[in-house]
Amino acid sequence: MGRGHVATAAPGGRDAGRASLRDLLPPERVVRLEDDAVVLLDQRRLPEEEVEVRCRTAAELSVAIRDMVVRGAPAIGVAAAYGLALAASRGEDVDQAYELLLASRPTAVNLRWALDELRADPTPERARALHEQEVERCRRLGEHGAGLLEPGARVLTHCNTGALATGGFGTALGVVRAGWERGLVEHVWVDETRPRLQGARLTAWELEQLGVPFAVVADGAAAALMAAGEVDAVLVGADRIAANGDVVNKVGTYGLAVAASHHGLPFVVVAPTSTLDSESPSGAGIPIEERPSDEVSTRFPARNPAFDVTPAALVSAIVTEAGVHRPPYTTSLPRSVAA
Amino acid sequence: MGRGHVATAAPGGRDAGRASLRDLLPPERVVRLEDDAVVLLDQRRLPEEEVEVRCRTAAELSVAIRDMVVRGAPAIGVAAAYGLALAASRGEDVDQAYELLLASRPTAVNLRWALDELRADPTPERARALHEQEVERCRRLGEHGAGLLEPGARVLTHCNTGALATGGFGTALGVVRAGWERGLVEHVWVDETRPRLQGARLTAWELEQLGVPFAVVADGAAAALMAAGEVDAVLVGADRIAANGDVVNKVGTYGLAVAASHHGLPFVVVAPTSTLDSESPSGAGIPIEERPSDEVSTRFPARNPAFDVTPAALVSAIVTEAGVHRPPYTTSLPRSVAA
Repeated sequence: MGRGHVATAAPGGRDAGRASLRDLLPPERVVRLEDDAVVLLDQRRLPEEEVEVRCRTAAELSVAIRDMVVRGAPAIGVAAAYGLALAASRGEDVDQAYELLLASRPTAVNLRWALDELRADPTPERARALHEQEVERCRRLGEHGAGLLEPGARVLTHCNTGALATGGFGTALGVVRAGWERGLVEHVWVDETRPRLQGARLTAWELEQLGVPFAVVADGAAAALMAAGEVDAVLVGADRIAANGDVVNKVGTYGLAVAASHHGLPFVVVAPTSTLDSESPSGAGIPIEERPSDEVSTRFPARNPAFDVTPAALVSAIVTEAGVHRPPYTTSLPRSVAA
Repeated sequence: MGRGHVATAAPGGRDAGRASLRDLLPPERVVRLEDDAVVLLDQRRLPEEEVEVRCRTAAELSVAIRDMVVRGAPAIGVAAAYGLALAASRGEDVDQAYELLLASRPTAVNLRWALDELRADPTPERARALHEQEVERCRRLGEHGAGLLEPGARVLTHCNTGALATGGFGTALGVVRAGWERGLVEHVWVDETRPRLQGARLTAWELEQLGVPFAVVADGAAAALMAAGEVDAVLVGADRIAANGDVVNKVGTYGLAVAASHHGLPFVVVAPTSTLDSESPSGAGIPIEERPSDEVSTRFPARNPAFDVTPAALVSAIVTEAGVHRPPYTTSLPRSVAA
């Protein structure tokens, strides 16, 4: 499908959409450091309400990360970096703040990476530079990833990997955005992503602002869309990527990878190098967070693993700011951080 | 795991659970014919409230079926049979009532089968006999299916296929029930089954009453449970089975079948022969109902196919009241109705 068709299908048109996203979601709107607080856009309340949460201590920020006020591996890394800078400026014990923030969620490796980056120089300047670098990494990986798309691409994605998840621009959704700007993306299928509905709430909200045509679907509908020939590629983010290319990401990702493989569709993982964990040889030893069962059911027994592991063998390509990496990942992946 | 372990893990114990399910969910509690109405247990409001809906005309019943007051292929067949008997007893035009009820939902073939069964003799006696026969078919297929389970079986299931879905006993959940009574079932993983949450609401409610240990999971978690070795078999129902063994069932079933195949797990479809459609050579021509998008998202564009097609090649066995049928299904499946 051509540009004209796509632009017409998008409410407000492509340029209007882009402008409005730039206005609504600059990096500092997602997460920023003020003199006395790390300020977060409360992602639990989107898209209904745009409310900010002010975290005045590392402890408050740790609770906010645990409760998913801010979520998305790169974004919680950025938030933690600001948190360590805030703790230092307040005269808090930096080592204690480091441990507190590190413990807030177990799976995303960006958290440890960002805290390690800040530890030696926990200043606002260093934290802001890290944030800017992460957004710049997303812009670069977006360009690399868009090079994988063909005109008319119908992309299926899971969870939220946009500006909200990264503190600006996005990973898998950054590729969609860059691909849309090049006129390559025709439609996005948005897995609603139970139980927290990051797709139905956050990805849909971002795509609406970008003006990209999309439809939300129940997670269980993805395989049938593939069988119907309505999907050209699956793009997802990552919370941690092992040295062999095993990918830990939002629960449901693995089932998508199996289905994509069954249908011969590209399954592409998109993440900045801060998501690479060269210390983990494979996905086997990576902790998978089990979140409260009441996110799934408040009345009946439930299990709620927040992430799953997609073996490298099911991953067609991994896109980072350093480029497009192909199997075997043990040799093709750069080390964290490549930039 | 032995009986003792399982019984201890079940709140109230096995016998307590079974007794209470018999009390709460006899066939007439799910759907029954009274002098002036077809009375349905409102499945939309379970498990919060047990409320009945009285349908006094075929038109009212047709709306109730469309709106999923009653759902599950065998149960809507039984309800439609009662509806035709009600229409005849009220002096309604039986042909018109037939067409109205037939049009209420497009995918389940049991609806047409039950209406055809009643058309020549639309009496309360004939409708009640059909209901009893359907429940008896479920009891028999439950026994056949339980023969496929090994002690300690951890079963994963999708949607609701219990007494509520069938007007008594159940199909895939009937196999679980028969297997539990034989001490073979250790645990049931219940896909919540978005968007209508028939698993999280209805299957969980039935299993709680049966006393079978279970946990609700997000649909996206199923493949990861398989990878972790926590699933021994996948059991699902069907809304229509084509002559070649292609299975139309609740959306999400196909993705489970792909994942089960990837993990070498048995994928077993359980349905009475009233679900067989020997007129459809394959799944390709079977209408897939697209339900209102607001079941998925009230705010953003959404697609909501209610069913998907699982190719026969991914189905390990089909269990009916006539026995366990293995590929090739074109020769092994009986014709509707076998009994």
